[in-house]
Amino acid sequence: MDEMFMKRALVLAKQGRGHVDPNPLVGAVLVKDGRIIGEGYHACYGEAHAEVRAFENATESVAGATLYVTLEPCAHTGKTPPCATRIIDKQIARVVIGSIDPNPLVSGRGMTMLKQAGITVKTGLLDDENKTLNRAFFKHITTGLPYVVMKTAMTADGKIATKTRQSRWITGPKAREHVHQLRHEMMAIMVGVKTVMHDNPALTVRHLEGTVRQPIRVVLDSRLDIPLDALVVATAQTVPTWVMTTHAAPLEKINQLKAHGVVVHTFDAQAGEVDVLAALTHMGASGINSILLEGGGTLNHAMFTAGLVDALHLFIAPKIFGGANAPTPVEGEGVTHVESAWPLSLQRIEHYDDDLCLIYTVKKE
Amino acid sequence: MDEMFMKRALVLAKQGRGHVDPNPLVGAVLVKDGRIIGEGYHACYGEAHAEVRAFENATESVAGATLYVTLEPCAHTGKTPPCATRIIDKQIARVVIGSIDPNPLVSGRGMTMLKQAGITVKTGLLDDENKTLNRAFFKHITTGLPYVVMKTAMTADGKIATKTRQSRWITGPKAREHVHQLRHEMMAIMVGVKTVMHDNPALTVRHLEGTVRQPIRVVLDSRLDIPLDALVVATAQTVPTWVMTTHAAPLEKINQLKAHGVVVHTFDAQAGEVDVLAALTHMGASGINSILLEGGGTLNHAMFTAGLVDALHLFIAPKIFGGANAPTPVEGEGVTHVESAWPLSLQRIEHYDDDLCLIYTVKKE
Repeated sequence: MDEMFMKRALVLAKQGRGHVDPNPLVGAVLVKDGRIIGEGYHACYGEAHAEVRAFENATESVAGATLYVTLEPCAHTGKTPPCATRIIDKQIARVVIGSIDPNPLVSGRGMTMLKQAGITVKTGLLDDENKTLNRAFFKHITTGLPYVVMKTAMTADGKIATKTRQSRWITGPKAREHVHQLRHEMMAIMVGVKTVMHDNPALTVRHLEGTVRQPIRVVLDSRLDIPLDALVVATAQTVPTWVMTTHAAPLEKINQLKAHGVVVHTFDAQAGEVDVLAALTHMGASGINSILLEGGGTLNHAMFTAGLVDALHLFIAPKIFGGANAPTPVEGEGVTHVESAWPLSLQRIEHYDDDLCLIYTVKKE
Repeated sequence: MDEMFMKRALVLAKQGRGHVDPNPLVGAVLVKDGRIIGEGYHACYGEAHAEVRAFENATESVAGATLYVTLEPCAHTGKTPPCATRIIDKQIARVVIGSIDPNPLVSGRGMTMLKQAGITVKTGLLDDENKTLNRAFFKHITTGLPYVVMKTAMTADGKIATKTRQSRWITGPKAREHVHQLRHEMMAIMVGVKTVMHDNPALTVRHLEGTVRQPIRVVLDSRLDIPLDALVVATAQTVPTWVMTTHAAPLEKINQLKAHGVVVHTFDAQAGEVDVLAALTHMGASGINSILLEGGGTLNHAMFTAGLVDALHLFIAPKIFGGANAPTPVEGEGVTHVESAWPLSLQRIEHYDDDLCLIYTVKKE
C-alpha cells in the first residue's frame, strides 16, 4: 500500500517538469483510512511546495493522516516557510519519505524535526526511482556540476550531416518535436561555435503547448568566432544567451556581443580551447543543474574527455549518408584502444515514427 | 485452419537454414481430418524435397489428405524426381501452396499438373512470409544477383574501429556468436582488401554445433594488394576463397595466389576499382544467392552506390570511441544532399546482452 501511494506521488511530481528547476520535482499524497484525501506537487519555481499543495487540496481534515512525499520535507525557510513545521502543525500522524534531501542545508533535518514532534517516519521508499527522476537536482547538489544529456541525431551509418554538412533534416517531424520537449526539461542548451556557424540554429523551445520557459543558450567559442548575425546573437535580448570563451578573445568582439545582449564569460584555455570543466563549474555555481548538449563532434568529444557527460539520447534515422568526410557525433582525437572506450548503459528504446531513440547513461568509474 | 497448418510448414522450412542453398527453404505438412499425419522439410541440398519427407514420415495412409507446402511443388526432374508426380501418385485430395515458384523452369507448372490430375489447389497462403524467408532464393532466381546483407558492428557514436583501427572487440561474445550464425546462413562472405590487411580475419563459421558448411570467402582487391600470408590465403586449400580483381592485377601475384588455392576472378575496372555489379553478376551466375557483406566502409559504400545492398544488420555496442579519423560503416564519397540518402526500413530490434542489433531492409525505388 505504501508503495502504491508513493508511486502516485512520483507521478504527481513529474507534472512539474520544465517549471521547477533548479528545485527538485516533488509530489505528495495525503491518505486517511486507505483513501487519498489530498494531492499536490511542486508546480513552479518559487511557488508552494508539494506538501503545502496537498494540504490546500485536502477534501477533509488532515489530522491523523499519512503523508507520502517523494523528497524529505524541508526544515529551513527558503522562498517558503519550512514544510516540516507545517506538517507538525497539521497533526499528521505518519510521514513516508522517498529520498532524504541531498541538500546539505536540510539533509536529515526535516526528518529529525518530524520525529521529535512524535510523528512516525519511514524513509527510502522508491528512493532509486526518485533519484532517477531528480538526477539533475541530485548531481548538482552533491557535485556542484550540472547533469549533462548529450542529444544527437544520426543516420544508421553514424553520420550527423552529409559531407557538405547538410543536416536538415535527418530525423522526421515526430523525433524533432520530441527534442523540443527535451530542451524544455533542461535549464541550458549547449553547442560549439562550429554548430552555430554551420547550422545557425535558434536553439529555442518551440512546438509545445502551454507556458514555456526558454533554457539558457550556451555557445562554447574559444576564439570568439561567432558571427554577430547568428540567430542566437540576434535574439539574445529575448532569450538568454551565454558565450563561453578564453582570454584570447578580442575585447572589441566581446563588447559587440554584449551590445547585442549576449553574456560573455571568459575562462582559462586548455590547449587553446575553453576548459569545459571550468565552464560547467561556473554554470553549476550559477544555479544551472541540467544541460542538453547538442554537439557537434568536437565539443561532444571534449565533454566526454572531461567526464562531464551523464546520459545520451541517440536518435537514429533509417537512412545511409556514407562519406569518409561526413561528420559523426563524437570526433576530436578519440580513444586509441578498444578497452579505453567510454562505457554506456542502455536504459530504453523509444520510437518516433520511423526514427529510433536509444537512451543511454554513461557508466562512471 | 489452413493458415495454422501453413505456419507450421514455414516453421519446418526454417530448419533447413544454412544447408539447402541455393535451393529454397521448404516445409510441408500432411493433414487428414484436422490432424497432422506427416511433416517434412528440405533439410540438405541434393537430398529429398519437403513433400517427399512428409510422405516418408506419414503415420498413416496419405490418400485423401491435404498437403500444405510453402513453395509450389516442382514439375521437373532435377536432383530428385518431380514432386507433383509423387503427389498425384499418393492420391492427395487437396494441395495448399504458399508461393508459386519464381523459377522459370517450374513456375506454375507444378500447380497445373496437380489441377489436371483433379486435385483441388489453393495458392498464395502466407505468400509474403515465405518470400521473406526465401528472400535470397527469390532475388537470385528473378534477377540473377545474390541477396546482400551488410553486417557491421559499431559504437553508439558510429565507429567501426578506433582511430588506430583497433576493432577487437566492439561487441560482446553473444553478438559475435550470432554473427557466426548469420555467416552460416549465407553462401558467401564478402570483404574489401583493406579489411583483410587491417584485421586479418579468418572469415569462417565457428562456435556452432552440428555440421557446418563454410561459405565462400570473397575479397574485393582491385590492385591485388592482399598479402600472401593473410589468413584467408593461408587457409584457401580448406575453405573456398575467391579474390575479385581488375585487369591491372600483376600476373605473377595472380599465379602466387592460385598456388595457395585461391580462385582469382578478373573484372573490368570502374575508376580503377572492381566493378561490383560485374563481380556480383558473376557470383550469381556461379550459383551464389546470398552474401554477407562485412565491409569496410569503402566497399560498403561501393555496394550502396551500385544499389546492391538489400538488408543491414547493424550491431550497436554501448560505448563511445570518438575520433574524427576513426572509421565508420559506410565511407567513400557519400551523398551531398540529405534527400539523396539511401532509405532504410526498420524490421526489428534484437538484443545480445548489452549490444543491440537493428535489422533494416534497404528501400528500393
